[in-house]
Amino acid sequence: MTLKARTVHVVGLGLIGGSIARALSRAGWSVSGEDVDKEAELACLALGYITSKDRATEAELVIVATPAGNTVEVVAEVLASVGPNTVVTDVAGVKNAIVHGMPDERFVGGHPMAGSEVRRLAGSSPDLFMGATWVLTPTPATTPDRYRVVHDAVRDMGANPVAVLPDDHDRLMAVASHVPHLLAGALMTEAADIAQDDSVLLRLTAGGFRDMTRIAAGEPSIWPDVLLENRDAVLATLSSIRTRLSMLEDLLSSGERTSLLTFLDAAAEARRHLPGRAVHASQLSYLRVNIPDEPGVLATITTLAANHSVNLYDIEIAHGVEGVGGTLILAVDQNDSDAYASALRSLKFQVSIS
Amino acid sequence: MTLKARTVHVVGLGLIGGSIARALSRAGWSVSGEDVDKEAELACLALGYITSKDRATEAELVIVATPAGNTVEVVAEVLASVGPNTVVTDVAGVKNAIVHGMPDERFVGGHPMAGSEVRRLAGSSPDLFMGATWVLTPTPATTPDRYRVVHDAVRDMGANPVAVLPDDHDRLMAVASHVPHLLAGALMTEAADIAQDDSVLLRLTAGGFRDMTRIAAGEPSIWPDVLLENRDAVLATLSSIRTRLSMLEDLLSSGERTSLLTFLDAAAEARRHLPGRAVHASQLSYLRVNIPDEPGVLATITTLAANHSVNLYDIEIAHGVEGVGGTLILAVDQNDSDAYASALRSLKFQVSIS
Repeated sequence: MTLKARTVHVVGLGLIGGSIARALSRAGWSVSGEDVDKEAELACLALGYITSKDRATEAELVIVATPAGNTVEVVAEVLASVGPNTVVTDVAGVKNAIVHGMPDERFVGGHPMAGSEVRRLAGSSPDLFMGATWVLTPTPATTPDRYRVVHDAVRDMGANPVAVLPDDHDRLMAVASHVPHLLAGALMTEAADIAQDDSVLLRLTAGGFRDMTRIAAGEPSIWPDVLLENRDAVLATLSSIRTRLSMLEDLLSSGERTSLLTFLDAAAEARRHLPGRAVHASQLSYLRVNIPDEPGVLATITTLAANHSVNLYDIEIAHGVEGVGGTLILAVDQNDSDAYASALRSLKFQVSIS
Repeated sequence: MTLKARTVHVVGLGLIGGSIARALSRAGWSVSGEDVDKEAELACLALGYITSKDRATEAELVIVATPAGNTVEVVAEVLASVGPNTVVTDVAGVKNAIVHGMPDERFVGGHPMAGSEVRRLAGSSPDLFMGATWVLTPTPATTPDRYRVVHDAVRDMGANPVAVLPDDHDRLMAVASHVPHLLAGALMTEAADIAQDDSVLLRLTAGGFRDMTRIAAGEPSIWPDVLLENRDAVLATLSSIRTRLSMLEDLLSSGERTSLLTFLDAAAEARRHLPGRAVHASQLSYLRVNIPDEPGVLATITTLAANHSVNLYDIEIAHGVEGVGGTLILAVDQNDSDAYASALRSLKFQVSIS
């Protein structure tokens, strides 16, 4: 932490942008912001969520939180208006096209995995991201310094930054979010169609059905863009789920009780081991990793952490002499430090733990 | 309510049976119970959940809460041992085979839609059924008096009795519960398979995925019996869901944004209108319905209520002279009374509201 307040500018002051402004203001950042809706700007000023509505072109960080359909355009426009030391990130739910379409090393893609039923500024909360996963998508062009700026902001909002390559993000989000939304919709419309003749069905829906269809109640308008932008991964996952349902139909038709139980056991086992959402409170270890001054090293190290389910609580770069790399200092849960250090060493990094 | 304590005997003192014993004891019923596990019997006696472990063959009501696989056998054995004035019910999750296989007018099938992650007596709670739907499956042979005994017990446990024909119950439960369980399993195993190579997937699972897979964590061992007993309805529903997923794949492939939004809008609209689980507290109206002394009239009237989403808070029979029918007095939410009375009148019943 520096003594001078850190500076961030938020473009788009709706549910997500408003929550970002509030969370970072509370964490001591100096926050400016803008919105095409001038009433939202004035409300944020009046409520103290932002201190200025003028774009801070020298801010450390600009977070673009406009609707997903505008993100590419707005990010490009912001990159053209800010200086070389400003990092720009976004919050769009599909990352591949935007990250690969924005080959500017000042841009680091992001995706906070939090939302609310209430849209726009009225739904915002400084606690929206507490304990949530916030995906960051560093590329080979991302430097540790720039990554750290976004990482710090995400941590200061109470979220857990997880570094994932853009391709992986989209492929995995198809399973984690996009197809679940369609499954919820398929189940809910199936029930609704039957309930037209048998309205009692709706009274027979207990907790399981309610849990499974809850996300279908969310605002639909954001979804067609997300689904079409991530079309290939969504199609592949839908097809795979259909294959699983066919397999279950075969097991049922042929009365294969044991195979059914094996399937259900595997699902139960996997669900019970889903990692919790809580923030760890255990003590931290610090890993010092010598890094060469070459592209891609930050993305390699941070995505390796994510793949080993290691939270990076803090990330810092101790620069070496220009051109000969430096040392990355990573704060991780002490229970994770040995395994993560081993994984790093297996990739030929020099690592020490303190 | 009578001044003398009502009497119930519970067979099977696990999660469901234990909770029934506790809920009815608390409501002032005189509760006896039995279990093949003699330790469970002794625990229930020691904890005051039951006052006797001897089968009360003259109890008003016997509730069979054994595992589903044994229900038919135990219900038959109970019916052979109790007197003509005892009503017998069960708690199995599939009703058609058991109800049609038990052509004894003293038997009224039941299915409480509540459960717990914790199994056996240790998971029991007198509050387990508060606000839950409890399906009853009267048949043409079910008399109002017998139905009322089960209805009263269910109400006294804080649950909402909903009368459904056994065939309808099973067909609708395929959509409301059985297929959702398989969908949760399909999604969870899909994610688990991908997570073997990409463990970061599990960190990208936010609330929606967690909601959708939660039921997959439930005890798997009860499910193969349920699914196979209700095989035809489950297969039909699985096939219908697969068709919906194919349709979604077609929309995605051809980029039909508007149709996707229409689908998602319909799902959102339906989910938002799912009736709540809360118990109504508004005032009651009493409908007096003249009923002929003929089979099926009780089932017709109670399932009509369910199909109109009308809760029957109380049900009472004022007998006429032997052989000339009587009057059924039904307590319903006063907001529902006019619509339900109209529906009854359209079936040629004479109805008055007070």
